[in-house]
Amino acid sequence: MRITVIGLGLIGGSIAKDLRKSKFANHIIGVDNNIEHANQALKIKLVDEIESLEAAVKKADLVILTIPVNKIKELLPTVLDNINEGTTVTDMGSTKKDIVDSIKDHPKRRNYIAAHPMSGTENSGPDAALEGLFREKIAIICDHEDSGPQHLALIEKMFQVLGMDIAYMSADEQDHSTAFISHLPHAAAYALANAVQDKEDRSIIFDLASGGFRSTVRLAKSTPTMWGPIFQQNKDYIVESLEVYIKHLNELKESIEHDEEKMYALMNNASKIRSILGGENPSLIKNEEKIVKFYTK
Amino acid sequence: MRITVIGLGLIGGSIAKDLRKSKFANHIIGVDNNIEHANQALKIKLVDEIESLEAAVKKADLVILTIPVNKIKELLPTVLDNINEGTTVTDMGSTKKDIVDSIKDHPKRRNYIAAHPMSGTENSGPDAALEGLFREKIAIICDHEDSGPQHLALIEKMFQVLGMDIAYMSADEQDHSTAFISHLPHAAAYALANAVQDKEDRSIIFDLASGGFRSTVRLAKSTPTMWGPIFQQNKDYIVESLEVYIKHLNELKESIEHDEEKMYALMNNASKIRSILGGENPSLIKNEEKIVKFYTK
Repeated sequence: MRITVIGLGLIGGSIAKDLRKSKFANHIIGVDNNIEHANQALKIKLVDEIESLEAAVKKADLVILTIPVNKIKELLPTVLDNINEGTTVTDMGSTKKDIVDSIKDHPKRRNYIAAHPMSGTENSGPDAALEGLFREKIAIICDHEDSGPQHLALIEKMFQVLGMDIAYMSADEQDHSTAFISHLPHAAAYALANAVQDKEDRSIIFDLASGGFRSTVRLAKSTPTMWGPIFQQNKDYIVESLEVYIKHLNELKESIEHDEEKMYALMNNASKIRSILGGENPSLIKNEEKIVKFYTK
Repeated sequence: MRITVIGLGLIGGSIAKDLRKSKFANHIIGVDNNIEHANQALKIKLVDEIESLEAAVKKADLVILTIPVNKIKELLPTVLDNINEGTTVTDMGSTKKDIVDSIKDHPKRRNYIAAHPMSGTENSGPDAALEGLFREKIAIICDHEDSGPQHLALIEKMFQVLGMDIAYMSADEQDHSTAFISHLPHAAAYALANAVQDKEDRSIIFDLASGGFRSTVRLAKSTPTMWGPIFQQNKDYIVESLEVYIKHLNELKESIEHDEEKMYALMNNASKIRSILGGENPSLIKNEEKIVKFYTK
């Protein structure tokens, strides 16, 4: 199968690696408006050739957009305009509502699958691409009833090949959940990095930075080019999640100041996250109505 | 040398492992009021014997308190009352001002070194003990001019053996810096875990939890028994750090809502943390007046 990957960064490059290795793809065409990224992707053999957007899209059985969400919204109509009748199109953006809304009346709407694989690192560019980045992670497919069944089947198969479980939900539901689980932690890390840089005696602070601090602000290293458009497209839900978070921070702060018993109650409630995330209580298994386990390595 | 470790959890157990392996200790006496922890520590040979507090303290050349900071404050006067003339005492608590204040007029004040090794994990108990937990991390020694030079030299040597660099500062300065670099990230993680648990449709959210979320809330798994007393003892500086953080969160939230340009400026400023923490700009080297590098592996 001939696959065109638009955007040769961490996500696009990692997908290309795994789809080639598994022989899901036998020819990969790359598109990138950053000429250095394009050349580098060719050099390290992420892709077989570099093409212009229009030519690349015409040659492909499957087109995958792995660019910032504002660029996805901008390019997706053009991509759909230019594909052949039977070509499948998907994108890997972290927001979905704004994107599906923008093409809801497109004549090739059913060729498109709105998807979001929940994986990544704080690094970017083709050299950041990793084999196995998606393995044992979850891919969200949104509004699948608006896509043709063959196109849906191909994207499900692609996620299986990447080693992912698949969750189905509406674009609105995905944006709401992802705001809390992914966008909020990123916003929190950006604010924490700024808060710590605010303290006067900064040099000593960074010398002292221990593991806990490093893992918490790791996400603040993520590129604003990717995350700025996400914050803008999912503005309402991210603002909601930030308000909930600030409410909880104020509650904890006030309990530390004035109500030790409440402070312990809040901390105990928070540390329940250990069993929730620790695998002792794998809710994945309990949610068979929502989550279909297609593939487990 | 005979060492008594009071508190056989993650920190105490990890220190015991390394000090035994390096032959800095040839006999380790354990004290723990949790009988299961005491038995387990004996079983896995973290310690050679278990003793009552008074007897253990009398037999030791060096006493290390590795218990929650409220317990350190409670026990330290008794420990100093019971040691022999030449015995050195230190503690590994994350707060220092309240503890040093509590024994400032003790006749054996100069036997005591106030210390804080900046390392840990979110796990607890003797089975969580890890070899090399402190290697290449920083140990803070506070108010060293209030300690006798022989006692200071012994603790400096101990941190060298653990593979640590040493930073010297006042107890007040350590509490202020540690509030931002360690206590604030923990408070932020507790609040984030609570915020996410607030969202109605929780089951799906935890299924989706990806790497970014897991690394951010990892610290919320830390035990409230250890962290509650830290928040209480360092209340003023933690409240200050939370206020600075909440201010930055509100600023980011408002910029997402109303001022895209400012949002990008805030995100770009935050992502400078990449170079600060990334080792490209190792301020450790620039702070030779503050940090003395005793030991590098």
